[in-house]
Amino acid sequence: MINNNQTMTTEFQNDTFLRTLKQQPTAYTPVWMMRQAGRYLPEYRNTRKNAGSFLDLCKNADFATEVTLQPLDRYPKLDAAILFSDILTIPDAMGLGLYFVEGEGPKFERPLKDEKAIQKLDIPNVEEKLDYVFGAVRSIKKALNQRVPLIGFSGSPWTLATYMVEGQGGTDFLSIKKMLYARPDLISHILKINTETVTKYLACQIEAGVDAVMIFDSWGGALAHSEYESHSLNYMQVIISNLNLLGYEEIPKIIFTKGGGQWLNAQSKIGANAIGLDWQTNIHHARKIVGQDITLQGNLDPAILLSSPEAIESAVKKILDDYGYGESHIFNLGHGITQFTPPENVQCMLDTIRSYSTQFHKS
Amino acid sequence: MINNNQTMTTEFQNDTFLRTLKQQPTAYTPVWMMRQAGRYLPEYRNTRKNAGSFLDLCKNADFATEVTLQPLDRYPKLDAAILFSDILTIPDAMGLGLYFVEGEGPKFERPLKDEKAIQKLDIPNVEEKLDYVFGAVRSIKKALNQRVPLIGFSGSPWTLATYMVEGQGGTDFLSIKKMLYARPDLISHILKINTETVTKYLACQIEAGVDAVMIFDSWGGALAHSEYESHSLNYMQVIISNLNLLGYEEIPKIIFTKGGGQWLNAQSKIGANAIGLDWQTNIHHARKIVGQDITLQGNLDPAILLSSPEAIESAVKKILDDYGYGESHIFNLGHGITQFTPPENVQCMLDTIRSYSTQFHKS
Repeated sequence: MINNNQTMTTEFQNDTFLRTLKQQPTAYTPVWMMRQAGRYLPEYRNTRKNAGSFLDLCKNADFATEVTLQPLDRYPKLDAAILFSDILTIPDAMGLGLYFVEGEGPKFERPLKDEKAIQKLDIPNVEEKLDYVFGAVRSIKKALNQRVPLIGFSGSPWTLATYMVEGQGGTDFLSIKKMLYARPDLISHILKINTETVTKYLACQIEAGVDAVMIFDSWGGALAHSEYESHSLNYMQVIISNLNLLGYEEIPKIIFTKGGGQWLNAQSKIGANAIGLDWQTNIHHARKIVGQDITLQGNLDPAILLSSPEAIESAVKKILDDYGYGESHIFNLGHGITQFTPPENVQCMLDTIRSYSTQFHKS
Repeated sequence: MINNNQTMTTEFQNDTFLRTLKQQPTAYTPVWMMRQAGRYLPEYRNTRKNAGSFLDLCKNADFATEVTLQPLDRYPKLDAAILFSDILTIPDAMGLGLYFVEGEGPKFERPLKDEKAIQKLDIPNVEEKLDYVFGAVRSIKKALNQRVPLIGFSGSPWTLATYMVEGQGGTDFLSIKKMLYARPDLISHILKINTETVTKYLACQIEAGVDAVMIFDSWGGALAHSEYESHSLNYMQVIISNLNLLGYEEIPKIIFTKGGGQWLNAQSKIGANAIGLDWQTNIHHARKIVGQDITLQGNLDPAILLSSPEAIESAVKKILDDYGYGESHIFNLGHGITQFTPPENVQCMLDTIRSYSTQFHKS
């Protein structure tokens, strides 16, 4: 396979994000935000109005490119772009019928409610069914013109499975957990199919040009400690290993288990270049647990961006101080930015990170 | 003050629960379940039908007594009773107007939406406004007739504050967190009032006869690591200290921060006799962190009770094995039992705990 991208990594106008993932020295701590292209930006809300539904926006390369670049245009201090898409494109491609109800989040028309539905589940034709995602990647890469790297992503096999079995997010996870404990064979079947599909999906994103990939394990934290490794982490490890076997060793891989701060030691051993942290975890403590060879990404409470410049400045400095030094830290929020964030508060955060973090860097 | 209860603690028919809280030897690992009186029991659903609303049930001593004793009658292997009530009785007594919408959980008619409402907030006349709770305690104690100890409880100041500011549960906590970061003075005002009220509330429950108290910090896990101690744990410490100053040193105190497994070390230092664990935490690891002087309570994933006897047996044994020895462990779920639990699965759990745990006890 040819990776369109690898020959160009040295040519980024700003490669701070990639250098930090590879543990190379930088002049400051890089930053991007989960959901940085989103509803808190008036320009996003405008595009969204023109595009129609959220899915229409995801499926149109021009619109997806437009919104992916909006935060970068507004905030030149962002050090990475992230593909505008949704983690549920995969179950949608599997035929589950993704739809969105305004104010209620994603739902599926045909969730995996019984054994028959699960036995019928199969790996979709990723290249064809998800071609709109790879088209968006190519379009975004072109528009970015090597300003900053582009992050591709997928949901984790477990997180996708929760949506596929529960039929929606925000549940108490009782359907999937009942299945996990009563019929581990069925869960295992779903997770294996998801793992193969995610691997292919990320490989295609890499082929289309993304410079790093992130696996969002949004619901890994719902698992009991005795089930996390066997039902979520191990499958993320398989994806990373398989991507490496496919020749993508040089593409940095980030994992992020929301609510998974108690399992950082295990997370540090699956071959990921970086681990995302939510706001529950002390980043200084996290560094001590994972050792020196892994980059940490996080972890400002997004709610702080609803407050005042003084509070934001102080909280940003606290994270940088806690971490204690700058190398191998990518600043981010501990979860997606909320739609109620005043855009000027993001600027305040970015200014503080840039000016305050230089002291922790040697180069 | 006279504690009706202290002179009688040696006369319990079954004092395994209290002995474990006091780190005294027992013949087996005691167990009770959060929400053990509840909708999974047909006899509860029947009483509830006669009582009317959930609040009607809480406010009627006869009905509250009836449902508190139902799980003990069905399951003689339960080692403690817990007062049937709701954590939101306190904000209701403060005048916020608690009501329940079927299927949506608790809400408040008058949440603390602005500074004016917060400044007006005051400590209610606990004895008078919450007399129905203390009446229920007296009635339950009489009906229990010293079979097992009775646990009293309250929400933590932070958890009560989240409901009071958000107006309901299950939110993203953005209103209270915005206030926390932008107006810490207002949050501090609410938390201080809640702390004084909870102290008085628990003191009155003790006077009415409860044998141990538990503080439920259901939403402490929503806090950033940098805010947990200052906005939740420290206030629980004040409550414990004040109860001790009031003369209730001998009444065991249990704290439980759902999602707080990363902060066990801090939790172990506030003077609680026991710490509740949710299912994310490995109980063996927890014991190593908190040391030998604190009892641990937990932590079976309640979803496992939806599965099969084989799976339940194996999961119960795993927790007992993980812990490694029996003393100072109270078996419980990691969260409330779900309404979908088949009652016979609870029996299976209880039988396994009783038969399998004896090997870990010396006496």
